[in-house]
Amino acid sequence: VLYSIVRPNNYQDSLRLMRLSNTLAASDGVGRVSVMMGTPMNKDILRNAGMATDDLDEATAADVLIFADVVDEDAGRFLVAAVDRFLSEQASPPTSTKMPIVRSLDHALAVLEDANLAIVSVPGDYAAAEARRLLERDINVFLFSDNVSVGDEVALKKLAGDRGLLIMGPDCGTACIHGVPLGFANAVAEGNIGLVGASGTGLQEVMVQIDRLRGGVSHAIGLGGRDLTAAVGGLAGFQVLHALDEDARTDVIVLISKPPGPEVRARLLRLAAGLSKPVVAMLLGEPSRHDVGNVHGARTLDDAARIAVELAGTHPRRLTPPRPDQRAIKALYTGGTFAAEAASLITESLGPVVSAAHGDGYLLRAGGHEVIDLGDDVYTRGRPHPMIDPSVRNDRLAAAIADPQTAAVVLDVVLGYGAHPDPAGVLAPVVDQGLAALRGAGRNVAVVASVCGTERDPQVLSVQTATLEQAGVEVMPSNAAAVRHALSILNRRPAPVGDRHAAAGPIGRLLSQRPRIINVGLREFADVLVERDVPVVQYDWRPVAGGDRRMQQLLDALGS
Amino acid sequence: VLYSIVRPNNYQDSLRLMRLSNTLAASDGVGRVSVMMGTPMNKDILRNAGMATDDLDEATAADVLIFADVVDEDAGRFLVAAVDRFLSEQASPPTSTKMPIVRSLDHALAVLEDANLAIVSVPGDYAAAEARRLLERDINVFLFSDNVSVGDEVALKKLAGDRGLLIMGPDCGTACIHGVPLGFANAVAEGNIGLVGASGTGLQEVMVQIDRLRGGVSHAIGLGGRDLTAAVGGLAGFQVLHALDEDARTDVIVLISKPPGPEVRARLLRLAAGLSKPVVAMLLGEPSRHDVGNVHGARTLDDAARIAVELAGTHPRRLTPPRPDQRAIKALYTGGTFAAEAASLITESLGPVVSAAHGDGYLLRAGGHEVIDLGDDVYTRGRPHPMIDPSVRNDRLAAAIADPQTAAVVLDVVLGYGAHPDPAGVLAPVVDQGLAALRGAGRNVAVVASVCGTERDPQVLSVQTATLEQAGVEVMPSNAAAVRHALSILNRRPAPVGDRHAAAGPIGRLLSQRPRIINVGLREFADVLVERDVPVVQYDWRPVAGGDRRMQQLLDALGS
Repeated sequence: VLYSIVRPNNYQDSLRLMRLSNTLAASDGVGRVSVMMGTPMNKDILRNAGMATDDLDEATAADVLIFADVVDEDAGRFLVAAVDRFLSEQASPPTSTKMPIVRSLDHALAVLEDANLAIVSVPGDYAAAEARRLLERDINVFLFSDNVSVGDEVALKKLAGDRGLLIMGPDCGTACIHGVPLGFANAVAEGNIGLVGASGTGLQEVMVQIDRLRGGVSHAIGLGGRDLTAAVGGLAGFQVLHALDEDARTDVIVLISKPPGPEVRARLLRLAAGLSKPVVAMLLGEPSRHDVGNVHGARTLDDAARIAVELAGTHPRRLTPPRPDQRAIKALYTGGTFAAEAASLITESLGPVVSAAHGDGYLLRAGGHEVIDLGDDVYTRGRPHPMIDPSVRNDRLAAAIADPQTAAVVLDVVLGYGAHPDPAGVLAPVVDQGLAALRGAGRNVAVVASVCGTERDPQVLSVQTATLEQAGVEVMPSNAAAVRHALSILNRRPAPVGDRHAAAGPIGRLLSQRPRIINVGLREFADVLVERDVPVVQYDWRPVAGGDRRMQQLLDALGS
Repeated sequence: VLYSIVRPNNYQDSLRLMRLSNTLAASDGVGRVSVMMGTPMNKDILRNAGMATDDLDEATAADVLIFADVVDEDAGRFLVAAVDRFLSEQASPPTSTKMPIVRSLDHALAVLEDANLAIVSVPGDYAAAEARRLLERDINVFLFSDNVSVGDEVALKKLAGDRGLLIMGPDCGTACIHGVPLGFANAVAEGNIGLVGASGTGLQEVMVQIDRLRGGVSHAIGLGGRDLTAAVGGLAGFQVLHALDEDARTDVIVLISKPPGPEVRARLLRLAAGLSKPVVAMLLGEPSRHDVGNVHGARTLDDAARIAVELAGTHPRRLTPPRPDQRAIKALYTGGTFAAEAASLITESLGPVVSAAHGDGYLLRAGGHEVIDLGDDVYTRGRPHPMIDPSVRNDRLAAAIADPQTAAVVLDVVLGYGAHPDPAGVLAPVVDQGLAALRGAGRNVAVVASVCGTERDPQVLSVQTATLEQAGVEVMPSNAAAVRHALSILNRRPAPVGDRHAAAGPIGRLLSQRPRIINVGLREFADVLVERDVPVVQYDWRPVAGGDRRMQQLLDALGS
């Protein structure tokens, strides 16, 4: 028996419809099930599937349509009861003092009057109008909805630009503003890497890989997949690059895009090259990796994350450029191959400035830079290897930290069987005291290390890492990453001075504090905000005018 | 007051001397302390430091010398008592049924008669003679000792080669044979990547980074830092490359070296290119990365680990090459950018064979290869995004696994807020049933995935990974790694047939089972073996002939 059930004026979002569909399909005696809103497109689909009924013709986009094959009348009655139970449960959602639920934008703003960001996930046909209404109230918009026309996107982005506001999307899958996840977003550590991307999963992958490499994210800002095409011309992308360059929490910027339009690409890279902060550019489909000035090319998403962490480090604190006289890297190794790798990377990066000088355990000694292998035979004759007795490094380490020429000290800490039971514990007090003395003199030096070891090693990777970090050491995920991070410190530039209008505008304010949010649509996006104590009001949107789109447009025109 | 104490015929290794020195230096009333064996070099050092006494001139290399500044006679008496207490404790070490302690090689072989590997960490002056004695008894040698002459090294390696034995070292810091750590070694997962290197910390770093990327190690074989120089000519290196190519546990070989001699380098790469297994070559100081046939160049140690894991996968099981008709990669994505990244990497790797065909969510469709973005608008109109409802992929996934053309299926699993609460749980039964059906037909397909998420995501990275792995999915650490792993499957070659002499020889036997070990020297190296239930006998070596080196050499000459 084919059952058709229409429940008028009972708008449900696509997630809830999916849940209802799954519930019904799992019931005894129920075969094929279709559950959808009565939009013109859905009505066409049902007609083409031979499910035309009188009810169908009259249904509006605010009506729920359910069609199901059932084995008998009993199953049919059970089906109708299940539908009505589900819809009545949805009509009286659990309320919470933490998340008020309202039915209009005016009401939402009355409850949370200083709201500065809205998440919009209403159906595409209605999304542009909702977004416009929000921008006109000076609220930044995260527009999750898809199926919004390019024309609407350009108009919305121009409006946002004129008012100094940010609109992320349409079809913006993910973002993270000041540690607050929006849409599809992963739980990652906060830090000093700012991401901007015309790509949802691209942003997610780079955030996740940064987290695995022990880096952290300041903001991740989605643009929508079309922002960097010729049609939209990067209206949001250019805004965001400027905003991240001026953002106090961001030290390194990562730009992720599917292939941008050639004209947009050229403008983007020109802008990136003029920024004060290093930019990692991951432009998909451009296989060759190039570094041009402060713009670092990446070949893959995981590659972009690695380069960003190498530039930004793993500490979520503001980096300061070295003083002009701090021009040297002092690398003190217990492992000979680590020393050789460091000498090779430094020589490659600094080029003919540096020429390697061997002997006495030095792998490199030029221009103030020093790379020493303390495991060299000259240091181990008649005494234990420095992996067994790391204290042989202490005096040189204290001197390197104190040397006014030093910009960065690089160390290895080798764990494992046979090695010292607590090599980090031997280094930590020397670093701690050295840095304290510098602070007293108003100076600073970066002490960078990598730990060669695993969680199952007797010394335990995470324990050794924590000991080092407490002493002020920046711990990078590999020796190559530690050396490249030290090199990036030499290249740090002072922040721009002068024109600060953007930082003072609405986008600057959005990035400088935790957002206060109106969630328009899918309730799931609000749940995570409540969990994290983000101020949020749930606006249970439904189509007005019974879902009649022309009537809605007329109302929109009258309202504005 | 300067105290000098000599304790004749009381050999202590450098670790124990360091411990004694630390104990004494921490005592009240004791200033500067020197503790060393009475070797000619140490005696010179003491004389130059103005500590010449009559005792010193007469001391032999088997005598312990202690010089210390103490504040008064009381402190001096306390010092002497502390020295004697320490030495008497060392003379009667705790014995254990798991680790018999013996005083001669004959005795060691009587206790563990089928021993096939010795760890030698005696002082350099005596090391070559001990190693030779062991090789002559057909025992492979891990020679930790340094300060062994090049002449001795060449002679030992020629002797080993003639007898089909392996000698790792001298100055071999680390190794791992069949999961058993030797020397300075980290606790890493077992797997199918075999390492060979003329570099201790280089091997350690690559092992650690492989472990962090969820790969595993079959063996890690150190050669000693000079093996690949012109003087030694890679005598051990060439042996080991052949042995790993024939080893059943090894699928991918990583070769690590500080810059080898140019002639050795050319021979090495020629040999590597002729092996049946892919080789990752990390030659320090060669900044450009090239792939030539099955030899993959790496720029840094962490880069070498990444490439090895991409080639080998993360499952510690034997890889089989695809059948000739299995020539296609089917990549089914919920994330659009992942699909774009995959299409880009596949096109780059397979070149003009593949030309991208867009439309209908296909990012690539050519030569049997398919990359589909199931989040494309054509699939999401009127229904949830596949990150919310991953079941939209199930039918295509089942078909891709069943397709006889398929060599590898590539998937993304996206975690985070907003995403499905258990995406791996939706995929797992489809993969499980698909692979079971293939096994029934004597076939197989690689199903490769990456999980975009963190441990703090609601779905929990490690939980989702475990669900996938139980279903037979190979989980790689990033999407780029998953795609490259799928590409490496297309390039797998059958194992060599024919000449198998090496596998049947002593090295083949060494690699095919857990070693049985004689530890000659530093007791610490035996402790970890006991912990891991490796059969081991501790040979508490000390210099014979009262430490007189000429007398020792005479005895050696008479003995052989």
